[in-house]
Amino acid sequence: MSVSVNLTWDSGLKFDAQINDRTIQLNSVDQMGPAFTPMELFLVSLAGCTAMDVRWILDRQRQKVERFQIFVNGKRRDEEPRAYESIDLEYVVRGENIRKDAVERAIRLSQEKYCSVMAMVRGSVKLNIRFRISGGNKPDEKFEYKTVIP
Amino acid sequence: MSVSVNLTWDSGLKFDAQINDRTIQLNSVDQMGPAFTPMELFLVSLAGCTAMDVRWILDRQRQKVERFQIFVNGKRRDEEPRAYESIDLEYVVRGENIRKDAVERAIRLSQEKYCSVMAMVRGSVKLNIRFRISGGNKPDEKFEYKTVIP
Repeated sequence: MSVSVNLTWDSGLKFDAQINDRTIQLNSVDQMGPAFTPMELFLVSLAGCTAMDVRWILDRQRQKVERFQIFVNGKRRDEEPRAYESIDLEYVVRGENIRKDAVERAIRLSQEKYCSVMAMVRGSVKLNIRFRISGGNKPDEKFEYKTVIP
Repeated sequence: MSVSVNLTWDSGLKFDAQINDRTIQLNSVDQMGPAFTPMELFLVSLAGCTAMDVRWILDRQRQKVERFQIFVNGKRRDEEPRAYESIDLEYVVRGENIRKDAVERAIRLSQEKYCSVMAMVRGSVKLNIRFRISGGNKPDEKFEYKTVIP
């Protein structure tokens, strides 16, 4: 299976990326109207990839998820190439009786087996993963996720 | 320098990614209205990253670029994780008297020094790079770019 993108220069460092009938604007500067930077889109791609895995696996484990979020923060190197040297990911799952082991297992399957974006940057970007579970009237429970693979 | 993204589950595998005041919709299915898949956004991120480098370096080399495009096609593995195993990139530069060595040098600097997304996937994704130059009434000239680093 293949995916195609056509990028066309507009002006300055502004580009239009076209994928089938959809377009997304790119620019090098943050907060330029509706445009995104390539490094922002990379984080969205990584977060979206693992989000879909985890959400789907939680369903398969019959966890009744009411709300699900991921907070991502990537730290870039100071030197060129200004790649992400580390990325913090926090998964937040809200629902009645969400099991810690179910969330941990979903994250593990995403990280080790399913998430294509994680697989491509393995070894070059350090991931710091945490998760938080809340439900009913209980306060949030916070956990560190221990990465098994390097 | 750091970049933050918040992802919030909407329904099914649909998510909203928020970066400062901008939002982008994600979905697992292609062509779902304005949404993108994580793997599509990854390609946009890679293409945008090298596009900005190359466009900027061509300016610094005083190449008078009238039109600049990148065509990208990524082939995914059949097995999980369904990461890109190879990505074809074709840079197309149009303008009067565009020098082949200038384009080649711009691509090389992007690939080896500046492009953060390429740096993060180095070693895990094979890049097949070509470029095309056209200008005035001349027909397109096509070139293969030889990757030096593995």
